[in-house]
Amino acid sequence: MENYSVLDKVRKQYNPKLPGCLSGNISGIGYDAVEKGEENPESGKLKQLLPVTFGKKYVKITNKNTSRENKPLSVGVVLSGGQAPGGHNVIAGLFDSLNKINPKSTLTGFLGGPSGILDNKAVAITKELIDKYRNTGGFDLIGSGRTKIETEEQFEKSLQVCRERKLDALVIIGGDDSNTNAALLAEFFASKKESISVIGVPKTIDGDLKCDLIEASFGFDTAVKTYSELIGNIERDSKSAGKYWHFIKLMGRSASHIALECALQTRPNWTVISEEVQKKSQSLESIINEIASVIVNRSKNNENYGVVLIPEGLIEFIPEVGSLIKEINKLLGDNEQQFASLLTFEKQSEWLTKNLSGISSKVFASLPKNIQEQLLMDRDPHGNVQVSKIETEKLVILMVEKRLKELKADGTYKGKFSSQNHFFGYEGRCAFPSNFDADYCYSLGFIATVLISERLTGYMTSITGLSKPVSEWVPGGVPISMLMTMEERKGKMKPVIKKALVELEGTPFKTFAAKRDEWALKTSYIYPGAIQYFGPDEVCNAPTITLMLEKGK
Amino acid sequence: MENYSVLDKVRKQYNPKLPGCLSGNISGIGYDAVEKGEENPESGKLKQLLPVTFGKKYVKITNKNTSRENKPLSVGVVLSGGQAPGGHNVIAGLFDSLNKINPKSTLTGFLGGPSGILDNKAVAITKELIDKYRNTGGFDLIGSGRTKIETEEQFEKSLQVCRERKLDALVIIGGDDSNTNAALLAEFFASKKESISVIGVPKTIDGDLKCDLIEASFGFDTAVKTYSELIGNIERDSKSAGKYWHFIKLMGRSASHIALECALQTRPNWTVISEEVQKKSQSLESIINEIASVIVNRSKNNENYGVVLIPEGLIEFIPEVGSLIKEINKLLGDNEQQFASLLTFEKQSEWLTKNLSGISSKVFASLPKNIQEQLLMDRDPHGNVQVSKIETEKLVILMVEKRLKELKADGTYKGKFSSQNHFFGYEGRCAFPSNFDADYCYSLGFIATVLISERLTGYMTSITGLSKPVSEWVPGGVPISMLMTMEERKGKMKPVIKKALVELEGTPFKTFAAKRDEWALKTSYIYPGAIQYFGPDEVCNAPTITLMLEKGK
Repeated sequence: MENYSVLDKVRKQYNPKLPGCLSGNISGIGYDAVEKGEENPESGKLKQLLPVTFGKKYVKITNKNTSRENKPLSVGVVLSGGQAPGGHNVIAGLFDSLNKINPKSTLTGFLGGPSGILDNKAVAITKELIDKYRNTGGFDLIGSGRTKIETEEQFEKSLQVCRERKLDALVIIGGDDSNTNAALLAEFFASKKESISVIGVPKTIDGDLKCDLIEASFGFDTAVKTYSELIGNIERDSKSAGKYWHFIKLMGRSASHIALECALQTRPNWTVISEEVQKKSQSLESIINEIASVIVNRSKNNENYGVVLIPEGLIEFIPEVGSLIKEINKLLGDNEQQFASLLTFEKQSEWLTKNLSGISSKVFASLPKNIQEQLLMDRDPHGNVQVSKIETEKLVILMVEKRLKELKADGTYKGKFSSQNHFFGYEGRCAFPSNFDADYCYSLGFIATVLISERLTGYMTSITGLSKPVSEWVPGGVPISMLMTMEERKGKMKPVIKKALVELEGTPFKTFAAKRDEWALKTSYIYPGAIQYFGPDEVCNAPTITLMLEKGK
Repeated sequence: MENYSVLDKVRKQYNPKLPGCLSGNISGIGYDAVEKGEENPESGKLKQLLPVTFGKKYVKITNKNTSRENKPLSVGVVLSGGQAPGGHNVIAGLFDSLNKINPKSTLTGFLGGPSGILDNKAVAITKELIDKYRNTGGFDLIGSGRTKIETEEQFEKSLQVCRERKLDALVIIGGDDSNTNAALLAEFFASKKESISVIGVPKTIDGDLKCDLIEASFGFDTAVKTYSELIGNIERDSKSAGKYWHFIKLMGRSASHIALECALQTRPNWTVISEEVQKKSQSLESIINEIASVIVNRSKNNENYGVVLIPEGLIEFIPEVGSLIKEINKLLGDNEQQFASLLTFEKQSEWLTKNLSGISSKVFASLPKNIQEQLLMDRDPHGNVQVSKIETEKLVILMVEKRLKELKADGTYKGKFSSQNHFFGYEGRCAFPSNFDADYCYSLGFIATVLISERLTGYMTSITGLSKPVSEWVPGGVPISMLMTMEERKGKMKPVIKKALVELEGTPFKTFAAKRDEWALKTSYIYPGAIQYFGPDEVCNAPTITLMLEKGK
């Protein structure tokens, strides 16, 4: 029996496309430093915190056509945080470009995420090894982890390991937090007069690490296409059977980019966008009433079926539920022993209701019993409610069901309601990267090498023009600090990369908002089908709708 | 904005491949009647019940190369039961072949399943209409339903509608029950000296409608490939993150073909096969202990992650759980009022424990509380436990968790256990049919037309040689009664098509069984990736592993 699937074998032979100036001889490549982006309002404070690295310019990579000789480079790479399709291709791009610049270059992969740097656990990336992982999903080549390198001590330890290994650069592939820490590490190295570059690569399926110069984080394209495949299939099932309402929760804790893109791809009957809920200070009741009213209206056309998308992080964005969770955390923390002595759910619930504020007590009472139980039982080691474990999709179903019963009692609703619930997250984080993500990531690896060979540090790899054909993509580097702002974290003001939330004034949301009432009533499903790696250009190379609407013509 | 996805548009242009003898001029097609299959042990009883149609031979379709003139045919078609990818292509195949035989032929689609026949609700299938549905998933062209045509009165009504519409034939696309009823309807029509043919087409994603002459039911190929895509992605995530055990429940109530094929495609750490559980009379406890022991063994290699597949119908196959459910149904049925007076779960549970048999009471006590609640609360309108609503994957997780705690207490287990649960079913029933299912279904439509034009009735469309290239497929027709046996249903002996369960002596299961201990301990994941419709032959045209092992060389 074969140890690889057929697609796996064939896919490894795929040659990712590269932007024009990266596709030839890259020895003679260089850059133009360009003033881009608006003045950062926090530049004063950031300059204080990052005296050496703050204030650099965006660099646009261009082929200077000089054929200078490059010394071999020794580079370390690490994957940080949750999986995103394309990670392996960043490493493959790094490997190939380092080798192109000088065949004596070496690439070291730190194992199991940033802790691999601190523990100095690493593996040499060889051609034999990387060839097994080209264009594949997952982070299993070197693993990943959630350890953060953020303390002075950790910076020291990292420096020591990089020195020991004689690294010219460290490439950190991660999300907003990991890139923030990359910038701080770059500053630390620079302040020690070390010439070790630190380069960040923007990764996250959530799509919330972006700006004008970082048009998309890698992995978003593949993940949303995988979820959209499934949502489309379920829509078709829903329409064919005509008897179920499917409630689908989608990964994405802080931002609803995934839900929004999936909505644009598949046109379900209703999609909740957390950013809008927060902006409008929408109550849970009003979200439920909205969904119930969609169901009632469709039932009048005898369509007792439909699909609703719910972003994973929704409940934290609902003001009164957020307050309730905070109050429970505090109450149970302050009265640990007393609460532990209440042995049945009935007694716990009674005690809680007495001690919560009036509003929170009412919100708690409005929740279905099993969600109340989840709030009280499933707490983390610090005693806090585990928001990610709350089955929001079931909460919504139960509350909608209750609302529909009321509407049935008063004669407003005459339909039938049966439901199914789904949660899609892990299904898409390790899919084979789409051609877009395979090309994008491989190019980012090349860009990292160029930035390193130009001795730049504290930069994030960037490509603009992503909605155009790959040959027209514009590679560059963005000073990470350019994306930063100051935020309070645990009582202290810290430099952070601000999460890019769904812009309610942006084209993707506005396009969705203009159509949603139509989609709610009139079945308008679109079935994207599975990601295609072969076939006509428009089938296998199209970017996301979000990207087209934000950046396309 | 476009109303179709790019793939949807391109896919509609796909020309399904046809077996050699169906690909040319089909006007001159004919058949050879061939003695096939073993003597049916129930032939005496079946002959009594189906005096006119029983005892027919398998027909092998061959191109006789005569160019006889065919009169226009008027055919009705209906989709019955759950969705399966390819249903639209059976109708497209029917449409094109009827048109080929005589352009004045007509095709009528009954709406919403068999009830469409009884209510005489139908739509004319035109070229314009069918062109919108070629090679697409779902049953939304004419809908489907679960009404069964099985009573004398329903037969009469069906005959009346077919006569009114002057149909030459009725094509019933469905699973084992629908094909059984097709055979009975064929007999009914024949006994009335009506020349209206009734032809069945084997559909079900469950894969449990098959025999030597029906090598696969359509939809199985696409559904298992969709689930395998997702399982492979989750395996890669599990391996990359190294911190979760994923428990995945898969659709398939009576048979575990889906779980078995997915196991062969993706090599997860453990897969439960219901047929084996039943054969070995395995207790729930022993299933849990098996899984826990896999987890313990992997933890010794520091692999605190993995993937377990669980077939949807499992709990009904566990003898003592099956008995418990029967007892609960009976007890709650006999003591409806008394039970209704018990207002808390605690009181209900206490009452039940007193009244259950000793063994069932013990089994009930061993179940996690929320599963106990599901058994008592979620009952259908007849008061019966709703087996399909029981979250078997969570039941298994909770019991494994408990077992691991015991093993930790006695020092056997030192690992960490965190879990995620998934259920895949609706995600695959309406996917765009794979090339295999698109070709297979389209060919089945052609075969139906040939069988009709030859005035055969009570036949099911058949293709043998499915593991070979399409050009070598052998089209034919199988008398449905050849698949039948006698079974007790509601106290009466009835003719039924026996469900084809996983054969524990068959090559697919034996191949799996020979490898599973290795897969349990040593991470051997295979990542099939998304279904491809374009690309190299081996990527986009391969049949299932089950089919290759059963029928391949």
